[in-house]
Amino acid sequence: MKATAPANQPLAPGQLREVARYRVIYGDTDQMGFVYYGNYLRYFEIARNEFLRQAGAGYRAFEESHRLMLPVVEAHVRYRRPARYDDELAIFAAIPEVRGASARFIYEIRRVPDGEPLVDGHTVHACIDGEGRVARIPAELRRALAPSTSVE
Amino acid sequence: MKATAPANQPLAPGQLREVARYRVIYGDTDQMGFVYYGNYLRYFEIARNEFLRQAGAGYRAFEESHRLMLPVVEAHVRYRRPARYDDELAIFAAIPEVRGASARFIYEIRRVPDGEPLVDGHTVHACIDGEGRVARIPAELRRALAPSTSVE
Amino acid sequence: MKATAPANQPLAPGQLREVARYRVIYGDTDQMGFVYYGNYLRYFEIARNEFLRQAGAGYRAFEESHRLMLPVVEAHVRYRRPARYDDELAIFAAIPEVRGASARFIYEIRRVPDGEPLVDGHTVHACIDGEGRVARIPAELRRALAPSTSVE
Amino acid sequence: MKATAPANQPLAPGQLREVARYRVIYGDTDQMGFVYYGNYLRYFEIARNEFLRQAGAGYRAFEESHRLMLPVVEAHVRYRRPARYDDELAIFAAIPEVRGASARFIYEIRRVPDGEPLVDGHTVHACIDGEGRVARIPAELRRALAPSTSVE
Repeated sequence: MKATAPANQPLAPGQLREVARYRVIYGDTDQMGFVYYGNYLRYFEIARNEFLRQAGAGYRAFEESHRLMLPVVEAHVRYRRPARYDDELAIFAAIPEVRGASARFIYEIRRVPDGEPLVDGHTVHACIDGEGRVARIPAELRRALAPSTSVE
Repeated sequence: MKATAPANQPLAPGQLREVARYRVIYGDTDQMGFVYYGNYLRYFEIARNEFLRQAGAGYRAFEESHRLMLPVVEAHVRYRRPARYDDELAIFAAIPEVRGASARFIYEIRRVPDGEPLVDGHTVHACIDGEGRVARIPAELRRALAPSTSVE
Repeated sequence: MKATAPANQPLAPGQLREVARYRVIYGDTDQMGFVYYGNYLRYFEIARNEFLRQAGAGYRAFEESHRLMLPVVEAHVRYRRPARYDDELAIFAAIPEVRGASARFIYEIRRVPDGEPLVDGHTVHACIDGEGRVARIPAELRRALAPSTSVE
Repeated sequence: MKATAPANQPLAPGQLREVARYRVIYGDTDQMGFVYYGNYLRYFEIARNEFLRQAGAGYRAFEESHRLMLPVVEAHVRYRRPARYDDELAIFAAIPEVRGASARFIYEIRRVPDGEPLVDGHTVHACIDGEGRVARIPAELRRALAPSTSVE
């Protein structure tokens, strides 16, 4: 899995790192025998949650303390090879870009143990307040998300 | 479909009537080639929504006007024959019982056009207010749900 | 809804037309109060199924008669405004492009009755045979999908 | 969590043991702010998969080697307290009963770390062969599932 750095090396900003493992269940598959295409967006969400948790910025805490939300405004998925029932998946994520009021996540899903890349994609998130207005991403979250990303 | 009365005859309280049609998509199936067992609870919800709408008591309006919710406290499903991709399903529902602070729905799902019974079940719902406390079902809703059901 | 032609006028190839209606259920929403971002890919699938059925080329029949499948290789979704519980959605689809062994669908989801555009996107599908090899889309399906699309 | 025995003590047949952990995502919740009632059946499936894997009888291997399947014929869920976004759940399972051609799983879902019981239930599974006929559960699987359960 060349895309990831050893755990003890600092990652360049935007560099994918493994943030979660997931075991495919029957409920994820469809009759073609593969994971249903919409369910990869669930896996991307698992990755975001764990990415934020590992960055010391759990999304629940973020919502509660800042009264801000990060709804998705765009999602893109590229399906290269299918995941199947009982496959163990390694989910990678990175934040290559944090703007004033939006952030971009990128993802890669690989099969364990052979590291075969199955799916990749990205999501773009806006930062909005409780009234649905665009809001600036707090500096604290910005630092947690992408410590060395240059800020626009 | 013996369980249902002709459209122009009054239904006895608690008698199943067809409230919705649904076309099975790929996303509902699993690799066994059948609808995933958990998804029938989605179909039951479709039935509840349409049942309430047809009774003049849409659930959204109910939540908004009364600040009450009807969360499910029990669900039971009996899987008799599998539904498959692209099957058209007729979903039947009835409310055989409304108590002071709870109500029971029963369901039956049949395949169109042969009327083959596939799945049946029931759900029990508590009535709670915005603070999560048990609340009495308003008389107005009670009448809409089960006009001739004797009230406990 | 300017993107669609009146029902009695021929549509230019690739022009969006309404192919399905869908009523949002609780099971589609998340705690933000909106439809979960991955579920729009279910709505896109509903649109594909109905588009093919209306074109006289139901997907189930296509799979069974040709032993071919059209798995998705790319999906893109743009979230403009959220859909909410109990919203009725009008789902539009078109096939702007059919290549030798792939096809592209575009989608738009609008809220009924005000026609407010909520979500749009596209999917790209490869044509593969039962052994997973790329296969040419049969002329019969090609004609059904996009009668006047120039073929590459 | 009194329902479970220490890891180094033999469990009585049918005694619940923790088989999986799961972190609730946004995609599991609905606008009430709780996990959607149908999604607990996904958690039950996670439990079955892990239960069988830990018993040395992974379900994928079982399907492939025996050409048998264990479709669900009945499911029951009791919702005692809601699970919320980001909750970590401990999922317990047991097989209290293995009959000739069917087996029953029971489940309990508790919140981590306080051990609060949220949901419990059961599923009943028939054993069928590739043609959909009822088939006897192989002795090998029977032993793996419930080593000391008396066989009917």
